[in-house]
Amino acid sequence: MAQIGKLVVCGVGLIGGSFALGLRKAGVVERIVGIGRTASALERARELGVIDEVATDWASALDGADLVLLAAPVGQMGSIMAAMAPHLAPGTVVTDAGSTKRDVIEAAYHHLDSRLSHVVPAHPIAGAETSGVDAAFGELYRDRKVVMTPLPESDADAVALVRSAWEACGATVVEMAPNDHDRVFAAVSHLPHLLAFGLVHDLAGRANAELLFSHAASGFRDFTRIAGSHPEMWRDICIANRQALLGELDQYLAELAYVRALLMAGDGKRLEELFDEARVARNAWASQFPPTSSAE
Amino acid sequence: MAQIGKLVVCGVGLIGGSFALGLRKAGVVERIVGIGRTASALERARELGVIDEVATDWASALDGADLVLLAAPVGQMGSIMAAMAPHLAPGTVVTDAGSTKRDVIEAAYHHLDSRLSHVVPAHPIAGAETSGVDAAFGELYRDRKVVMTPLPESDADAVALVRSAWEACGATVVEMAPNDHDRVFAAVSHLPHLLAFGLVHDLAGRANAELLFSHAASGFRDFTRIAGSHPEMWRDICIANRQALLGELDQYLAELAYVRALLMAGDGKRLEELFDEARVARNAWASQFPPTSSAE
Repeated sequence: MAQIGKLVVCGVGLIGGSFALGLRKAGVVERIVGIGRTASALERARELGVIDEVATDWASALDGADLVLLAAPVGQMGSIMAAMAPHLAPGTVVTDAGSTKRDVIEAAYHHLDSRLSHVVPAHPIAGAETSGVDAAFGELYRDRKVVMTPLPESDADAVALVRSAWEACGATVVEMAPNDHDRVFAAVSHLPHLLAFGLVHDLAGRANAELLFSHAASGFRDFTRIAGSHPEMWRDICIANRQALLGELDQYLAELAYVRALLMAGDGKRLEELFDEARVARNAWASQFPPTSSAE
Repeated sequence: MAQIGKLVVCGVGLIGGSFALGLRKAGVVERIVGIGRTASALERARELGVIDEVATDWASALDGADLVLLAAPVGQMGSIMAAMAPHLAPGTVVTDAGSTKRDVIEAAYHHLDSRLSHVVPAHPIAGAETSGVDAAFGELYRDRKVVMTPLPESDADAVALVRSAWEACGATVVEMAPNDHDRVFAAVSHLPHLLAFGLVHDLAGRANAELLFSHAASGFRDFTRIAGSHPEMWRDICIANRQALLGELDQYLAELAYVRALLMAGDGKRLEELFDEARVARNAWASQFPPTSSAE
C-alpha cells in the first residue's frame, strides 16, 4: 500500500490505539498524531508509543494529514466532524470505526458535505471486554472483518486507502450498504448486548441478588460477558440504531411470546424441537468461527 | 469418608461418568456398575474404564449397592424410580444430579415412599458444552458447587454419605430448600438458556440467516454458547420448573418493556445508567468467579 505520511487518530482507546499499532507494525505509517477529549489518556498513548504526538487543536492535528480515523463513541461523531470541518484539507481521507453507520453518514453529510469524496465510513468487527489505550494491541484486527460502507460520493482512491490500511492491520474488508449494516448488527450484536444488560440489571435489582449471583455458573458468565461492555459506547449505539434495534427487539419479543406459550401449555415436544434447531444452527456457525481472541 | 463398596450410576454420560471417575480417583469406591437406556453408551463407558460392569436390569444393579446416582434427564426420574423401587434394599442410598429439585422430590415421594430416609436429592453445578461419557473427566467437579436438598425424612448418615461423595470429587456442598433451589436456578440458569435458545432459533429462521450469522462475532458466540446445550435435558428442565421459569420470564419481559420504552423515548441518560449498573454488578460478580473450566 501507499505510505501514510501522517495519520490522525481521534479517540486513542482500544480501537483507535490498536489501529495505530497495527499500521505502525506493518511499517506503513510515518507519524501518528492523537487527539481527543481526555488529555491524560492521550499522554498515556504517547508514553506507550501508540502515538508520536498529542494535538490539542484540530488545525494542527489536520495540518498535512493523509488519513484521519474517528474512533470515538458514535454519539460524538457529529460534534467532532463539526470541529474538524474548517481545518480539513481536500486531500485528507476521513474514516471512522463507529459500530453504527447510518448516523455517522448522516453526520458526514451534514458537517463534511464539501469533503464527501474523501469520507469512507467503516466498522471493524473487533473489540474486547477491556477498553482504553492500555488494552490496545497491534494484532487486534488480525483475521477480523471490517465492514466498509463507502458513500456514492466516495473517491476510489480514498476507498482504496482505507481498505489497504485495514488490510495492513490483518483484517478482511467487506463492503455493505449502510442500511444493511445497521440491520445486521442490530440482530447479531446490538440486541444481544441489550438483552444481556437487561438480564443483569434485572437480577442485580432484586432483594435476593446476592443469593442469585452466588449460584450463577459459567453459562451465566458467558451469557452476560457483553453486559460488561462500555455503557457510554452502547448508549450511543442503541440510540443511533434504535429504529433497527426496536425492530429486532420486537421480533425477539414475539419469539419469547411463542416460547412462553409452549411453556404454559407444557409442550415439551415443540420446546425440544426449538432447542434442537437452535443447537444445530449455533453449532454449525460456531464450528466455522475463528477460535482466536475476542471480537465484537 | 466411608468406603463405597458398590456404586450404581444410572445414565453414564458427562455428569454420571465424571462422578464415577472422581470417586475412583479419590480411591473411595470399589466397584462401579452402570445402567441406562443406551446399551452402546454403557459399553463405551466400560471400555473407557468409567464403570466396571454394565447391568441390564435393576435387580442385579441394586444387589448389594451402597449408593445410587441417578444422572438422567429429569423427565425420566419418575419412571426410573418406579423401575428400581421393587429392588431397592433398605440400606441403599439414592441421590441424583437433576437440575431441578421439586419435581425429582415429588417423584421420590411417589415412587420411593418407603425409602425416603435414604433419598438425598442434589444438583452439581457443573457441566460443559460437550455431553456423553467420552467427555467425562474426574476433575469436572473440582472447586464446583453441589446444591443438596435433603428431605425432612432423610437420614443423617445418608446425607453424610452423599455429601462426602461429592466432596471426594472436589466439590463444595451447600444445602438449600428445594423451592429456593428451583427459583434461584430459574433465574441464573434456566432463563438464560431459554433466552439464548430463543435468539438463535429466531435468527436461524430468517430468510437472511446466513448473512446474519456471517457477521456475528465473539460477543454473539459467548452469548449463545448455552444454546448449544442438550435439547432433551433442557426440555425436561423447562417443563419440570416451568412455574418458576414462567415467573422469571415474565419479570424479564417487564424489564425488556422498560428498556423498550427508554429506546422509544430515546432516553440515552437512563439507558446509560441501566447499562452502567449492569456492568458494575456483572464485573463485581465475575471478578469472584473461578476462572477455571466451564460449569453449568
